[in-house]
Amino acid sequence: STVDLNCDLGEGFGIWTLGDDDALLDVVTSANIACGFHAGDPSILRKVTDRAVAAGVVIGAQVSYRDLAGFGRRFIDVEPAALADDIVYQLGALDGFARIAGDRVRYVKPHGALYNAIVTHTEQAAAVVAAVRDYDPTLAVLGLPGSQWLAHAEAAGLSTVHEAFADRAYTARGTLVSRREANAVLHDASEIADRCVRMVRDGVVRATTGEDVEVRPHSLCVHGDTPGAVAIARLVRDRLTAAGITLEAFR
Amino acid sequence: STVDLNCDLGEGFGIWTLGDDDALLDVVTSANIACGFHAGDPSILRKVTDRAVAAGVVIGAQVSYRDLAGFGRRFIDVEPAALADDIVYQLGALDGFARIAGDRVRYVKPHGALYNAIVTHTEQAAAVVAAVRDYDPTLAVLGLPGSQWLAHAEAAGLSTVHEAFADRAYTARGTLVSRREANAVLHDASEIADRCVRMVRDGVVRATTGEDVEVRPHSLCVHGDTPGAVAIARLVRDRLTAAGITLEAFR
Amino acid sequence: STVDLNCDLGEGFGIWTLGDDDALLDVVTSANIACGFHAGDPSILRKVTDRAVAAGVVIGAQVSYRDLAGFGRRFIDVEPAALADDIVYQLGALDGFARIAGDRVRYVKPHGALYNAIVTHTEQAAAVVAAVRDYDPTLAVLGLPGSQWLAHAEAAGLSTVHEAFADRAYTARGTLVSRREANAVLHDASEIADRCVRMVRDGVVRATTGEDVEVRPHSLCVHGDTPGAVAIARLVRDRLTAAGITLEAFR
Amino acid sequence: STVDLNCDLGEGFGIWTLGDDDALLDVVTSANIACGFHAGDPSILRKVTDRAVAAGVVIGAQVSYRDLAGFGRRFIDVEPAALADDIVYQLGALDGFARIAGDRVRYVKPHGALYNAIVTHTEQAAAVVAAVRDYDPTLAVLGLPGSQWLAHAEAAGLSTVHEAFADRAYTARGTLVSRREANAVLHDASEIADRCVRMVRDGVVRATTGEDVEVRPHSLCVHGDTPGAVAIARLVRDRLTAAGITLEAFR
Repeated sequence: STVDLNCDLGEGFGIWTLGDDDALLDVVTSANIACGFHAGDPSILRKVTDRAVAAGVVIGAQVSYRDLAGFGRRFIDVEPAALADDIVYQLGALDGFARIAGDRVRYVKPHGALYNAIVTHTEQAAAVVAAVRDYDPTLAVLGLPGSQWLAHAEAAGLSTVHEAFADRAYTARGTLVSRREANAVLHDASEIADRCVRMVRDGVVRATTGEDVEVRPHSLCVHGDTPGAVAIARLVRDRLTAAGITLEAFR
Repeated sequence: STVDLNCDLGEGFGIWTLGDDDALLDVVTSANIACGFHAGDPSILRKVTDRAVAAGVVIGAQVSYRDLAGFGRRFIDVEPAALADDIVYQLGALDGFARIAGDRVRYVKPHGALYNAIVTHTEQAAAVVAAVRDYDPTLAVLGLPGSQWLAHAEAAGLSTVHEAFADRAYTARGTLVSRREANAVLHDASEIADRCVRMVRDGVVRATTGEDVEVRPHSLCVHGDTPGAVAIARLVRDRLTAAGITLEAFR
Repeated sequence: STVDLNCDLGEGFGIWTLGDDDALLDVVTSANIACGFHAGDPSILRKVTDRAVAAGVVIGAQVSYRDLAGFGRRFIDVEPAALADDIVYQLGALDGFARIAGDRVRYVKPHGALYNAIVTHTEQAAAVVAAVRDYDPTLAVLGLPGSQWLAHAEAAGLSTVHEAFADRAYTARGTLVSRREANAVLHDASEIADRCVRMVRDGVVRATTGEDVEVRPHSLCVHGDTPGAVAIARLVRDRLTAAGITLEAFR
Repeated sequence: STVDLNCDLGEGFGIWTLGDDDALLDVVTSANIACGFHAGDPSILRKVTDRAVAAGVVIGAQVSYRDLAGFGRRFIDVEPAALADDIVYQLGALDGFARIAGDRVRYVKPHGALYNAIVTHTEQAAAVVAAVRDYDPTLAVLGLPGSQWLAHAEAAGLSTVHEAFADRAYTARGTLVSRREANAVLHDASEIADRCVRMVRDGVVRATTGEDVEVRPHSLCVHGDTPGAVAIARLVRDRLTAAGITLEAFR
């Protein structure tokens, strides 16, 4: 069996850096590259798209609310039409660099508060879908199973990719434990890697309440900006490979 | 004979407006559309590209230094490589909207302080040229005859378009009178329109010192943000047409 | 009897203008000056504070979410502590100019989406109050009667000022008709001015349902950015004066 | 004898960090705190001013061109009057937090490209001086001996503080070796610390050409954002103390 490994990249700005892009590009198969609205300046977009193409990593647009000061982590009640325009702007900007690097943007993964909002916010979900469809209906969209975002994308004829989170705890209903809970994020690399193997091989993850719940991820998200992020991502990759699972970008 | 008529458009931001885009799109043949770095937000880019295509007006990217607070009118000593990346970002962003509108970006005209800087600033001129060539070597570049910008563009194999200014005074050497001089800008619509006819039909313009100097514009720039801008632009168009000159975008 | 007349001012940015600040400074008694987060750049702050002091108009800080692109009209789910810091920053920045002009900031009126949010959003209301109290507990706060904002301000010992809107329709419960309703905003200058007189002299306003409801405004808000804004503001002032009402800033 | 030790602090933005503010506040006597135009958001200003006051470190305003994307390191040809307004805005914003923390801004040190520009740029130097004098003529100004900035400040009656750089190479004329030269910056902590002792005790520094040149610093600048910055700063402090030199903020 196969699975994709995705990670957020290019999330510095100007003099400021975040995460180890180069190391992660050796590990993942898909790069969610920041497009300048929550992070990422033009020189970072250039560098990361160049290196992603050189590393054979597929380029995705990590689109966001316009909010550098808040790193895109704050819900903004932007009008759906304006949101769609913001998304198109980011897609076009990143795609220019991707094309110069010899490839192009292949998928879209919303970032931060936008990712969370369009799990349930119908109008914003529809707006992001409309933007993607307007820009290029062959782009895949990456997101949370059960979200409005994926439902609208599917209805619009876009190719959808279900993702699971390598280091997040799951409830008995198969949803993510809220980050406000103490145990929302796992930190033990070995445990994280083993969970990833089970998710892909067996289609289940152990919930915080003890039982297994079903997950069928096409893509696993590893984080790039936490302590030990690179080591965790590498172990996930190694364990998956050792379990006979092929890592490759979704299509 | 034929000439192109170009104008800056899409130079509002958020709630703020500047110029009468709709009226000017009925007059000009080429639209220099702001790309978000000195003016223009994504919703404005969407609206102006849509209307330009509907009006049969060719879309150009009016690229700028990153400076909303200064409207791109202040020289910034940005590193050439970073400048090139800023240009690619703007090109890609605008092109996304142009493609959705059913056309694409066809040319590049730098804005404000960048326009002025690359008349003489070799490194920045070369950087903007490199960005255009990287992004799409079929894009034309619009600029001041004799500028480093056009010289580098020509050396790089780009198609260059010489422009003259409808409402600016010229020196005996054929250069623009500095805006710091009192008489740098003409305001009389009839005089402006007559000068335009002479520039295109006869290849000359009357200098402030009284003699005719040679100009051979492929494109005439009319301004959109001055009082009476639309009326002046219309009169220029009418007089050119009445003189048997065809208004059409350069190729 | 007396009443204050307040208006939003200084809401341009860079090259862009909005409203006729100079004309309005001849009409109002209190100026809600934008502080740079939704509008207003440092040169505008300087100019408007200078002129407000010269005109004898009291200076208030029109604080906002950080959102130039959205003119502060979009709710942002910013953390309360970060919001408080944003408010202090804006207060300090405006106060610097006010002091140079020979006066100082005397009150705080939140702008746009923040104004609306803290009618009910307890945490954000408390955060803005905490910022004002930290910065200067002698500042008055201007807002909607019945709002969390005024309730928290009063509990914190701040001086509160109730405002009514000259050109907004009221419901039978004394609340504002939502802007989503067709009849939310009045446009007839004479009707607006007469309503203002009744609000101040009689303490009532005619609701959309036909009955009079009680309002007891310390301050009337006139708008500066609508067509005919200056003419309406002048008529409000004239009718109030003609009715024997003294226009003066609250204390 | 005594000397001041100053360092740039608060130079993160949003999620991004730069330097170890807390460690450096235990070492320096004066903190040049970023004011939001090249770095520093309101929450950072709050935190750093609070901690500076708690540590007994004097607060200075590290004012800059408006350029987050370029970290204030690019010359911007901003109009002097607009530059002065930008400086007042930053001073007021930082001062608000300083006052809440129980102290206030005591001095001004321009950052990056502005620091370099006003060594020779008369109009911009005069503009920054005018802003400081307008805001508060009791503020001291920190800068390079021989600069237009200090000359204008002195002429305006401001208190001037000469600074020397702990880790920069000096020419035989007592000026800084350009950063474009390979040997412009020293990296050996012990050598840096010894040079600092000589500068303060003996009033000389060894130039790259081998001879001693005179320097008479009131303040030594240590860097906070280089590898080993904290260790170097600590060693400078220890060696100065061991040499009988008292570290204390200038007055």
